Amino acid sequence: MGRIAGSDGARTAAAIRRAGLRLIHRRGYEAMGLRELAAEVGIRPASLYNHIGSKQELLFDLIHEHMAALLASATAALEEAPPRAPARLRAFVLHHVAYHLGRKAEVFVANFELRALEPPGYERIVAQRRAYEAMLVALLEQGVEEGAFRIPDSRVAAYAILAMLTGTCTWYRPDGRLSRAQVAAIHAAMVLRSCGYAEGGEE
Amino acid sequence: MGRIAGSDGARTAAAIRRAGLRLIHRRGYEAMGLRELAAEVGIRPASLYNHIGSKQELLFDLIHEHMAALLASATAALEEAPPRAPARLRAFVLHHVAYHLGRKAEVFVANFELRALEPPGYERIVAQRRAYEAMLVALLEQGVEEGAFRIPDSRVAAYAILAMLTGTCTWYRPDGRLSRAQVAAIHAAMVLRSCGYAEGGEE
Repeated sequence: MGRIAGSDGARTAAAIRRAGLRLIHRRGYEAMGLRELAAEVGIRPASLYNHIGSKQELLFDLIHEHMAALLASATAALEEAPPRAPARLRAFVLHHVAYHLGRKAEVFVANFELRALEPPGYERIVAQRRAYEAMLVALLEQGVEEGAFRIPDSRVAAYAILAMLTGTCTWYRPDGRLSRAQVAAIHAAMVLRSCGYAEGGEE
Repeated sequence: MGRIAGSDGARTAAAIRRAGLRLIHRRGYEAMGLRELAAEVGIRPASLYNHIGSKQELLFDLIHEHMAALLASATAALEEAPPRAPARLRAFVLHHVAYHLGRKAEVFVANFELRALEPPGYERIVAQRRAYEAMLVALLEQGVEEGAFRIPDSRVAAYAILAMLTGTCTWYRPDGRLSRAQVAAIHAAMVLRSCGYAEGGEE
C-alpha cells in the first residue's frame, strides 16, 4: 500500500545477503541451512528462492561483491597516489588495512569459504584475487626498477605482504589501544622496510 | 587374537583424530556430523564414544595438540640458535614456516575453527597462542635492546610477522617453483628487514 514492490524486493535481497554473511561467518557455509537463513531474515524458506538461486549462488555473490569492491577501492587509492613506487605502496597498504578492518566478516568468508565455492564461480573469484595480487606485484616491480626496493621474488613478497595486512582482521579490536589509522601506519612502515626501502628516502 | 587391545584403541583414537582433522578442514566443524566421522574411520557411530568425549572435545584436542607441538618446536629452535636477536629471529622464522608448511590442515583448523571452541577450552587455546606470541614479542624487544631492530610497537609487529608467515600455508604448493627452504629464507629476509635490521650486519 504505497510501497514499491521492486524496492521491497531489493531490501529483502540485501537483508538475505547480510544474514547470509553473518551466518556463514558464525557457523561456516556448509553448516548454514536455508531454513535457518530464512528464519534470520524473517521470511518463509520458500520465499528465499524469489531472491537467490541457491546457497552456492549466495556465497558466490558475497565473495564476488567483496572482491569487486576491494579492486575498485585499490584502483581509486592508486589513482590518487603520487607516481613513485614507495608512495604508491604506502597508499596501497593504507587502503588495504582500512578496507579490511571495516569488513571483517566479508574478509573471513571470502578467504576461508573459498574452499566451498564450486566451478565456474571458484575460477571467477580466483581471477579476481589474481588481479588484485597483480596490482601489488606491479607496484613492487616498479619499485625495483626505480631502485627503491630490493625484492628477490616479487610474487612471494606480494603474498607475504597481503597475508601480513589481512592478518590485522584477526586481532584488531576497535576498542583497543590503537586506532585503525595507527595500525595502518605501523604496517605501511613495516612493509616498506620489508621491501628494502630505506626510510627517510624520497617517496 | 594376538592383538593388544590397548594398542588397537590407540590406533583407532589416532584414526579418529586424522579423520576429524580431514573433515573439519574440508567442510567445517559445524558441518561435520559424528555419523560421517564414524563412517570415515570405518567404525559404528556408537563406538566413537569409546575414544572421544564429544565433537567439541575432539576439536579442542586437535587444536591443543597442534599448539603444544608448535610451542615445543619453537622452544627447541630457539635453544639451538645463537644468542643475538637477529639470528634468533631468523631461527624463529625458519621454524615457523617449516612447521606450518608441513601441517596445512592443522593450521587451517587451529586458526579458523577457534570460533567454534567453547569455554574453558577456548581460553586454554588462547593462552597457548599468547605464549607463542610472547616468545616472538620477547625476541623483538631483545633486538631493540641490542640496537639491532627499530620497532615502534612490538606487539603489532609480532602479529604482523605471524600473519605473514602463516599466510604461506594458503598459497604454497609442494610442486611449485620454490622449495620450502627457499620460501622460508625469503620470509626470513623480509621479516628481518621489516624490523629495521640492516642486512650484512653482524648476527
